[in-house]
Amino acid sequence: MAKGFLLIISGPAGTGKGTVCKSLLERNNDIIYSISATTRKPRTGEANGINYFFIEDEEFKEKISKDEFLEYAYVHTNYYGTPKEFVMDEVKKGEIVLLEIDVQGALQIKKNYSEAVFVFLLPPTMEELKNRIVKRGTETTEDINRRFENAFKELDFVGEYDYFVVNEKIEDAVSDIESIIRAERLRVKRHSDIKEKVISKGGK
Amino acid sequence: MAKGFLLIISGPAGTGKGTVCKSLLERNNDIIYSISATTRKPRTGEANGINYFFIEDEEFKEKISKDEFLEYAYVHTNYYGTPKEFVMDEVKKGEIVLLEIDVQGALQIKKNYSEAVFVFLLPPTMEELKNRIVKRGTETTEDINRRFENAFKELDFVGEYDYFVVNEKIEDAVSDIESIIRAERLRVKRHSDIKEKVISKGGK
Repeated sequence: MAKGFLLIISGPAGTGKGTVCKSLLERNNDIIYSISATTRKPRTGEANGINYFFIEDEEFKEKISKDEFLEYAYVHTNYYGTPKEFVMDEVKKGEIVLLEIDVQGALQIKKNYSEAVFVFLLPPTMEELKNRIVKRGTETTEDINRRFENAFKELDFVGEYDYFVVNEKIEDAVSDIESIIRAERLRVKRHSDIKEKVISKGGK
Repeated sequence: MAKGFLLIISGPAGTGKGTVCKSLLERNNDIIYSISATTRKPRTGEANGINYFFIEDEEFKEKISKDEFLEYAYVHTNYYGTPKEFVMDEVKKGEIVLLEIDVQGALQIKKNYSEAVFVFLLPPTMEELKNRIVKRGTETTEDINRRFENAFKELDFVGEYDYFVVNEKIEDAVSDIESIIRAERLRVKRHSDIKEKVISKGGK
């Protein structure tokens, strides 16, 4: 049986993870999106099991103690985490599961589940990275500078990833990722029965 | 600096290595073909440095003793080998070097140079494999059966490779290999300066 894989799209803030993942999912409806669990309350328009799995603090902590997350973080008084079972089940079925996550989260997953495919999204230039952080608005100059410095530092972690993709034009970045997916589907290591498949198939 | 890589297209006789490589080179004129050295005499139409590097027995043996081949074999009174220096130089320059080779040769290279990218070409079915071996003609039934059995056994070595490609339709097989190339170009491990490149590039 062929196994699928967990595809991690990651990178610093301002590299366009969200936009790239959205376009990737629109173009490939066979990719399954990994939904995070959180203790944060749903915002207007957010639905349980679609945007997040909204759970209570106690349940989240219990899941942590049972090692049920591939990674988790505590951010601004709320927990966020990637449920392990869902990912594992889909991968076992041969599916490709997409996870959009920040650099710290990706590094956690690398420790727990190194057979995932790690893609680091890069900005075309540092200037463009700053522009994108500024464009998000609603933040003070101090916040923006802090975010930018943090993003700059996080570029050092690209060496921990399998692939890098420069997000200059979204379509090109998505095509790059599609090539990575197509190549990774052809990886011998995820197939235990290549010879058997050829033998068992009838002639034409 | 970004390194290139040696792309090994390999597989049993009858899987269509030659046709696939020819089409791959036609569609991608930036791929460099690795020319083998041989002690066999040139056939009509064959040119030195194009089809093979035609060299004398003594020179070949000297190169063996100096470890100048990535792999070599002695077949029907003649030596055949893959010169190491040419491949290494081009890879260092960032080029993609294509080598079409049988399974035994690929396994030798795996021992000496495991950072090459190994692609195993498969027939769609065993029946089709037999058809292709038969179509080559000029061989006795005994020869054909021996070749077929050998090809069948060689399928066991697919586990030693990085990728597998089923050669049902040539265009699809070539597209698969093109995706592998595009993905492998995005491999972090062959780039030592990803962050520097982003930093040094001016804004737009």
